[in-house]
Parts: sequence; structure tokens; C-alpha cells
Amino acid sequence: MVVLALPAHPHPQARRKPKIPKGTRDFLPEQMAIREKAFAIIVSVFKKHGAVAIDTPVFELRETLMGKYGEDSKLIYDLADQGGEILSLRYDLTVPFARFVAVHSIGNIKRYHIGKVYRRDQPQMTRGRFREFFQCDFDIAGAYAPMVADAEIIKVLTEILTDLQLGKFEVKINHRGLLDAMLAIAGVPPQKFRPICSAIDKLDKEPWEIVRQEMVVDKGLPEEVADAIGRFVVLRGEPLELVQQLLAPDHPLSQNPMGKAALDDLAAMFNMLQAMGALGSLTLDLSLARGLDYYTGVIYEAVLHGANVGSIAAGGRYDKLVGMFSGKDVPAVGVSIGIERVFAIMEQQRAAASGRPVRAIETEVLVASIGNGLQVRRMELCASLWAAGIRAEFGYKPNPKMADNLGFCHENAVPYMVLFGEDELTRGVVKIKVGPGLGCAYVCMYVCALYLGV
Amino acid sequence: MVVLALPAHPHPQARRKPKIPKGTRDFLPEQMAIREKAFAIIVSVFKKHGAVAIDTPVFELRETLMGKYGEDSKLIYDLADQGGEILSLRYDLTVPFARFVAVHSIGNIKRYHIGKVYRRDQPQMTRGRFREFFQCDFDIAGAYAPMVADAEIIKVLTEILTDLQLGKFEVKINHRGLLDAMLAIAGVPPQKFRPICSAIDKLDKEPWEIVRQEMVVDKGLPEEVADAIGRFVVLRGEPLELVQQLLAPDHPLSQNPMGKAALDDLAAMFNMLQAMGALGSLTLDLSLARGLDYYTGVIYEAVLHGANVGSIAAGGRYDKLVGMFSGKDVPAVGVSIGIERVFAIMEQQRAAASGRPVRAIETEVLVASIGNGLQVRRMELCASLWAAGIRAEFGYKPNPKMADNLGFCHENAVPYMVLFGEDELTRGVVKIKVGPGLGCAYVCMYVCALYLGV
Repeated sequence: MVVLALPAHPHPQARRKPKIPKGTRDFLPEQMAIREKAFAIIVSVFKKHGAVAIDTPVFELRETLMGKYGEDSKLIYDLADQGGEILSLRYDLTVPFARFVAVHSIGNIKRYHIGKVYRRDQPQMTRGRFREFFQCDFDIAGAYAPMVADAEIIKVLTEILTDLQLGKFEVKINHRGLLDAMLAIAGVPPQKFRPICSAIDKLDKEPWEIVRQEMVVDKGLPEEVADAIGRFVVLRGEPLELVQQLLAPDHPLSQNPMGKAALDDLAAMFNMLQAMGALGSLTLDLSLARGLDYYTGVIYEAVLHGANVGSIAAGGRYDKLVGMFSGKDVPAVGVSIGIERVFAIMEQQRAAASGRPVRAIETEVLVASIGNGLQVRRMELCASLWAAGIRAEFGYKPNPKMADNLGFCHENAVPYMVLFGEDELTRGVVKIKVGPGLGCAYVCMYVCALYLGV
Repeated sequence: MVVLALPAHPHPQARRKPKIPKGTRDFLPEQMAIREKAFAIIVSVFKKHGAVAIDTPVFELRETLMGKYGEDSKLIYDLADQGGEILSLRYDLTVPFARFVAVHSIGNIKRYHIGKVYRRDQPQMTRGRFREFFQCDFDIAGAYAPMVADAEIIKVLTEILTDLQLGKFEVKINHRGLLDAMLAIAGVPPQKFRPICSAIDKLDKEPWEIVRQEMVVDKGLPEEVADAIGRFVVLRGEPLELVQQLLAPDHPLSQNPMGKAALDDLAAMFNMLQAMGALGSLTLDLSLARGLDYYTGVIYEAVLHGANVGSIAAGGRYDKLVGMFSGKDVPAVGVSIGIERVFAIMEQQRAAASGRPVRAIETEVLVASIGNGLQVRRMELCASLWAAGIRAEFGYKPNPKMADNLGFCHENAVPYMVLFGEDELTRGVVKIKVGPGLGCAYVCMYVCALYLGV
């Protein structure tokens, strides 16, 4: 083989130290196998529910992303201004979806989208928090009967978390209308609703005393107002039961028009979820707040019991986001599954299990020869197997040793070896060694026979 | 459904006009169906040849990409400096692969990688030239017997182009050693090899007279040197035949040591490709030059006959690229398939064909009801179908009309409709309407029977 001298390298003395950007990861073949398995499970549920796939560019005009994410906007990756448009990497798949619905003037769509999103956050790789990570989104846009799409989204989420076999999970559910009602009843002035929601959002990490202090000291709420909020956010329980309690005529939430409407929504939705057999893992939790600006109705978040990985999925209703682009509202509801955390759990499960490696190579046949100078004959036989749709390799060493061939098959769980030497070629036969499994033995024998003209 | 007032929008009067960045595209559901079909064909060939999948981040440290692409470096998208590392979007998948091999200290790997790459080029969307586009790469890294990996890569390329059914194609092949030998023989000084190669590279778009003028006027070659090059670059033909002609002892290329070594390489490779039945679509073409800096051996490019879309795949051997990162060379050879051009052709084929739409929704059953107030019962029955792995939808209108149900099934080629009213529920039966195809009728009947407790 000719190896040419390269033209002089610009800095031949400065050997570049290979490095991957902070907060990102390579996927090695075994990790790709896990990832593909997870995606296959998720996509299968999406398709079961009639969703179609779409894709959007990895960057958007910066103005498309502005004003959608509240305080989190500071985490957006910007592209350099190299002349032309001002661009940013997408922060989630929801805002690009709303832009997509607006650009293509879509009236209704049930779609999924699996893609990488980007956040300049402090990475915690061991907990599955990356700067580049996948989201698997399922959204339903269109004006439909109340709560039907919301219920199906939550059903989809519970099916996926069940099928992924990640252990016991819980989907916490709340409603922006219920949050706003409880803040109004507690006496929070409307302009403080969002900042106070941000404080409530911290209740999954901080105790009430700390959150109360933030409300009173940092955000200027009177102590009795904070305490009134405190009496609401402890409310959590079995959804149908708790909704009925809150709907009692003497309960302040049912006496507030926003609260009553939200409770009616939730009652209808939980009724549908019960019919679909999805109520078991749901909790109505009045402390769930969700930070993003664009939610307008039901909100939810899924957590795994006993896993220290934060929430692994979240979503809600956002009826005004498409209208921010097109001027014409298209109501929508959806969920994002944060698949990196799922990968991390699946990799741990794999490590904790039997220790049997993930099979990354799917080769079915190794074509091997005895004696020298048969490489081209091995390639020729391999081509017959490929033509028959069989996954086959021929070995790249000119004259591989039998120990190497056996080692390769063993290591990669390759079930068949086709073997020949000059003697077999003369007699018009090959030997077939069969490992565990019997999948393609007959096809393989048949093809070899064709090759040999038998 | 509660629709909440959103907090005041920062610029409520400035309605954002929705727009997608220049040179990029959304994939609509029908386009995704075509894309997934193309990927499935390509991945199936990759796996048939024993390749494993990997993935790398969409951006790399800018220094990783510097000094690899010659003049094309100006097309790289940079990220803004927001503090921290200096990053750029990947320009291809080859340099990230070399970085990957170096970072993970991999000695040998046969991998594929399908991912988006980014170039700030002038887009020509109708010809399938985008700023964000997919590449499907197959590469073999590792020190192996000469030309074996090169031959398998080209075999993989011809299999994929055959399986994609894009029409007649041709793979043009050359060798950097042959190019360098012919330039040396013609009398080009070594420091002008790369600029003159860039000029030769234009021969697929420009006639010889224009290219000759560039060599003489812009790049200062004596006329007789340019004319000597002109006698080489017209050489093209059936690979085995042409190689034998050039290997004749009196041919100047076989008298040059670099040329002789390259011709021996090519002869061995074409011999293997003949054994694998892949010689038919190959041409040895001494005018093929390829612009990128990193190639060191065989180079190739695939074009479709009669399609005005430029090359649809290209690649070659790059033995020094991994060493630029790690200091330890790992020889490698690979091919990139530019799938956007393939999509464009497949979409045209689709439009030119019967006009039957691509089926984007894969729903198998629509659950419909007669009479009012049965939405929750439809959802309940759907959940039984989902649990049995059947793709089912229940309709989002409270009381869909039968005409709408039939229209939905017809439009989306949904083969089954399960139908019931109060009467059927009382009697414990459902009706099943069967459209074209019979795939899941029995399972569907069985599940409905289970649901009804029959």
C-alpha cells in the first residue's frame, strides 16, 4: 500500500491533544446499541398512537427562540455572527415545533420528534445531565374536545415509562389554572405570579422553610400570604380522590372561577385516564410548578422512585405558542422525554445484570479459510452471502489463524463460521461451524452451495 | 378547557414572522417517511458488512477542525464565544471520527455514522445542496492487509447505490499516488501539487481549456507542463484494462516509483472488486482529484447518470488523520454518502410514480362509535388495543360523523375500523369494518372480544 508524504502540516510541532467539548459525549458502539433499543421502544409507542415523525434544523433564527424560556434563555448557545442571519442552537423541540406549525400553516397534527437539543448548563454527566442531549417529544396540536389530547399524552408517557422497564415511576400533575387560583386566593398580586411559581418550582429540591424564606425575603410576600400558599402546596394525592375533595362546594379552590374550571378539566382528564388504565402511577400535586413561560393548562413531570436523576420527562399544554409566530393560535399539548437519563439507567441496569455484553456487531457469518492466499476467495464467497441478505465478514488479515477466527466469533457472538481450504474448493464443498442459535444456518448452507455450483 | 391569559408579551405589537434559517429545511411527515426508508436501506448494507454505529457531538473544539479542509475551512460554522471553550459545528463526519479514534485509543474499528453536518455554502435547495445536511459514513480504521478495506468500502458503496434504486451510477476512482506521479512526470514542482490538484478537481464542471488557463495564467505553470498534465487527465476507462495499460513497462507512470506503487495498489483492489462482483459500475479516471487535504491513497466519487445533482458519494484513504490528534497513526479508509441528493431523487421518483401518497401515519385501527357520549368508551377500547401492540386511534371529536371516520381511514390507508354504539355495548359486540389488507384483523377481533368480556 502506498503511503504518501502529506504536505507539511501548518504546526507540525504542536501535536493537538484530542478532546471532546465539555458536557458532550461520544456514543461508543455498545452505547449506541442501548440508545437504539430505547428509541425503538419509544417510537413504537408513538406510532401505536398514530403519530407521524418530523424533523427541524438544529439551529433556528435567534429571534424565534427569544422570549420563550424566561430566565433560562441565558443557557442558549448562540452561533457566531459570520455575516447573514443571526442563529442559535435549539434549546428544546417545543418552540421549533410551534414555529414548524406556524410556517407550514398546519391546523392539526399529532407528531413525534427525536433530536438533540443544547443548553449551556453546568453538566453533571454521571447524573445524565449534558450540554448536548436528546429529547423525545410527542405533541398534539389542533382544536379538539377538551382534555382528550391531554389525556392521551399522559397515557403515552406512562406506556413509555412502563415499556422502558426503568422501575417504579410517578407522574406528578398540576394545572396552571390551579396554581394561579391558589396564588390569587393566598393574596399574591398578579404581577408576582410567575416569580412565586419559580420559587414553588424549587420545592422538589428544597424544604418549605427555604422556599418560604425566598418568598418573604427575596420576593417581598407578607408572611401570612406565604403561609397561605404553604397550606396549598402540601396538597397531593390520588388524583380522582383529591380532585373531588377540592371540588367540594366549600373549598376555596372550587369557589374561585379559575380554580373551578381547572378542577373540572382535571376531573374530566383523570376520568379518561382511568378508562385507559393509566391512573395508577399518577399523582395530583399542587406543588408542581414548571419553569417555562409558555404553559397555559395542565402541566406534568415524571420521576423515578429511588433514582437520583431528577425528572425524566415533563410537559404540558401551551395554547398560545404557535400564535406567537403566526398570529393564529393553534392549541397544543405535549411531553418531552429526557432520554439521556434513561440511557444512564439502562447502562447501569446492564452493568448490574449478568455482565453479558451488549452485542454491537450483528454479523451472522464469518467466512474463514485454511491455508494461504485465499483472501480473494473469501471475499468472493462473502459477496454471495451479502447478495442473499446475510450479514457476513471475511477477515482483513491475509491468512488469519483459526484461533483468531474462533476468538472473533466468540467475542462478538457470531453464530456461524464458513470454512474452506484448497481441498474443500477442489471438492466443491465448505464446512459450516454452528455456534449457539440456528437462525440462518439453512440459508447460509444454501447460498454456499449456490456459490460452489453444487 | 381553561385558557389562561399569558403574561404580557415583551413586544406584543411585534408579531414575529415565522421563518426557517437559510439553506435548511424542515422534514414534513411524508419526507420523514422517505428519509427513514433511505436510512433503513443504507443501515442494512452497513450492518451486512459487520459495521457498528457510533455518534459524536454536533460541535467540536474549533482546533479539532482547523487545518483539515484546505480552502473549504472558510465554510465552517463557528459558535459565538460565550465564555468557555471555542467551538464549531462539524463540517463532515470524517474528522470527528478520527478525533473519536484518537480519544478512545481505538486500534481498529469498522463503523458507520449517520448525522447532520454544516457548511456555510451557497445553498441550491432544488439540487439537494443545503447548509445543514445528512452524511452517511462508513469507515474502516486499522492496520490490515493492503487494499482489502479499500475494496470493501467501494463494494459497500455500490451495494447501497444499487439498493437505493436511483438509476445507473458510476464510481470514478483514482489514487493520490497516481496524481502525484503524473504531476511529477509532467514537471510540476512539488509545492504546486495541491493547487494544481484543485484546478484538476474542476474538470467535472469546466472544459480542459478553462482549467489549462487557470494552471498557466493563475498558477504559473509553463504551457508545456500544463499540456503534459492534459495528456494524463484524459485517461479514463474500464479499471482492470486501463491499469494493465498503465502498468506496461514503457509507460511513464509505471516507470515512476510512486506511480508504480499506486498502480499495483489499484490492480490488487480491482481484482478484489471483481471477485465481489462490483467492477461493473467502476471507472478508473485520472482526472478525479478531490479537494480535501487529508487523503493519502485511493480516492473515489459516485455520480448518477443523467441526474444533475453532482456527486452523491465520495471518499478515500486517509492514513495520517488520526495521527494528527494522537501522534499515533491509525490507517483508515471510508466513504460519505450525501443523502439529501438521494432524498431529492426519491421524492422526484415518488412524484413521477403513481401519485399514491407516502403513508406517514401507520395507524392500523380507528375506533369509532355511533351516537353521542361514547368518547371515553372509545378511549377505553383503544387502550386494550394499545396493550396488545396494535396501532389505534379513537378520534378527538366528541361525536365524530361516520363520513369523517371513513374519510380518515381512506386518506391514511387505515385498514380497520372498530365500530360500536349503545346497542352493541349492551349486546357485548363490536362491528369490525375491514379495508384493504388483512394484517391484524384476527388480533383486533380477539382483543375486542377480550375487552367485551366475550
